[in-house]
Amino acid sequence: MNRRHLVNDPDHVIPEALEGLELSHPSLVRWDPGANLILRHSPAVHKVGLISGGGSGHEPLHAGFVGTGMLDVAVAGAVFASPTALQIQTGTVAADSGRGVLQVVKNYTGDVLNFQIAAELAAEDHIEVQSVRVDDDLATRPSLVGGRGTAAVIAVEKVCGAAAELGADLAQVADLGRRVVSRSRTLSLALEACAHPGSGTPAFELPADLVEFGVGIHGERGVSRMPYGPADDLVDQLVDPLLADLELGSGDAVVAIVNGLGTLYPLELSLAARRTHHRLADRGVSVARSLVGSFVTSVDMKGLSITLVHSDDAFLRLWDAPVRTPNLTW
Amino acid sequence: MNRRHLVNDPDHVIPEALEGLELSHPSLVRWDPGANLILRHSPAVHKVGLISGGGSGHEPLHAGFVGTGMLDVAVAGAVFASPTALQIQTGTVAADSGRGVLQVVKNYTGDVLNFQIAAELAAEDHIEVQSVRVDDDLATRPSLVGGRGTAAVIAVEKVCGAAAELGADLAQVADLGRRVVSRSRTLSLALEACAHPGSGTPAFELPADLVEFGVGIHGERGVSRMPYGPADDLVDQLVDPLLADLELGSGDAVVAIVNGLGTLYPLELSLAARRTHHRLADRGVSVARSLVGSFVTSVDMKGLSITLVHSDDAFLRLWDAPVRTPNLTW
Repeated sequence: MNRRHLVNDPDHVIPEALEGLELSHPSLVRWDPGANLILRHSPAVHKVGLISGGGSGHEPLHAGFVGTGMLDVAVAGAVFASPTALQIQTGTVAADSGRGVLQVVKNYTGDVLNFQIAAELAAEDHIEVQSVRVDDDLATRPSLVGGRGTAAVIAVEKVCGAAAELGADLAQVADLGRRVVSRSRTLSLALEACAHPGSGTPAFELPADLVEFGVGIHGERGVSRMPYGPADDLVDQLVDPLLADLELGSGDAVVAIVNGLGTLYPLELSLAARRTHHRLADRGVSVARSLVGSFVTSVDMKGLSITLVHSDDAFLRLWDAPVRTPNLTW
Repeated sequence: MNRRHLVNDPDHVIPEALEGLELSHPSLVRWDPGANLILRHSPAVHKVGLISGGGSGHEPLHAGFVGTGMLDVAVAGAVFASPTALQIQTGTVAADSGRGVLQVVKNYTGDVLNFQIAAELAAEDHIEVQSVRVDDDLATRPSLVGGRGTAAVIAVEKVCGAAAELGADLAQVADLGRRVVSRSRTLSLALEACAHPGSGTPAFELPADLVEFGVGIHGERGVSRMPYGPADDLVDQLVDPLLADLELGSGDAVVAIVNGLGTLYPLELSLAARRTHHRLADRGVSVARSLVGSFVTSVDMKGLSITLVHSDDAFLRLWDAPVRTPNLTW
């Protein structure tokens, strides 16, 4: 049977979902239907503004992370399509409270281009803008355009948001974001491809004995296929290259993000988290903090990504700082 | 293709998942592998203890709600199978800090029986036990054994947990729980049945033009089938009977729990939340608080439940009280 979704008109799914977010969290966020922005219910005063965004279909990213201690504005494009430069410009103006705006941009050609144009337009309005490009996906880092931006964006938004809340200036927040990116790597795999909302057809088919390795978050094929097998073996295939690329070893500490790509359910994510901890412990690497859940998705892809962020005490203080958004609160 | 899961040995999925939860949230919870309990990392002192549990496969329920302001102990059975009376007794002893223990029990024959036996065993240890039976599922309330316990259990655990934290005694907490149950109703539907972890075969098949109405959380068939259609129409079929049964009208307020049953993804849940708000507003009913996400699942069932809890100021004060657990924090 073709896949079925709970949608109305597929062309209206994004504004309807953003309206639903606003109605569900009226004390935290508000929706600007003109530019499809989600903004803090109460704008921040005199702090560096944080804006992120991109194509939709990755929910709860980014709109679910707007609030105290994280983003000021999220800009939503259509499913898997960049928002326009004008949308981003509108969001940048809204995010500015006089100390400039940091753009957190996942490394995709359309997003990079449109955020860049928006930054130039904002400069004409005398808003200072800096940009952090997130390129954590290890599977695509050898490519010409560099690694795709995936779940490490959560770590960047969290710690830059905390630093901005604590009064850091734009250069400091941008520098921090770039350091987090340089210390973050992600790998992912899928048991099933996604289908666009309202479309019954998955983006690709997998043989029963294989999984797709190195998938991104736009429904694309991965970089290779590997045998389907026990969860522990599959998790090792993700964790081991991350450890090697980040050159992690005995005494190092990480934040581990075990992220569902859409329809992996909690039992499966807990199993993956367990194995991640064990595998790191075997190498003497400690997991200082964990984030386990579906945070950066690819619509209804059944799969997971694992992100390791090489952490230190300064990073952990910002990670632990209070955050209050629809989908991340502590 | 048959469905595939990220598991190791299906017989070990529950202890492995509970170990994963402990490793991911070491400051909040600990796992007792002997009785498959999840307990607070730091036991509460001199307050009414709260214990819940039941068959597994409903994650993050119940283990994900252990912590300050909610449960003291969660007891896990095998997938869709009640824990034993001895497991529950062990958990009850662990939950007691001298002021007695409240059992929150979803209305299923096995759970009701085993929690009852555990209460009798605990009485022999001079632990005072009271029980709240949750039977919110409107689709099955006309049956001989009464309605099944579904997502309203979250509301019961949240507000009873808050009251216990504030120093209420056992009779008060139990009375509060029973009042919440009496003011809560839930209805659910599914687009796809679930498959047991490690099994590739869904529990039932649906024709392409129908959805299953009145499903529970154990993979069972619903009470009827209805045409598949736009999200808004399907949501109305859930909301309208809840409004009627709770006799809600102009001026009333509710807490709305829009709950994914496993693999519904965030865009779909936001659409359902939006329509729920609109439908209630049309009747003059306000949504005082919303909880939108996958909290009480049926493994990888694709579907949703909507729970309305008729609320008042006293209820909302307890709902808003601080909570810090792996899967609910504010």
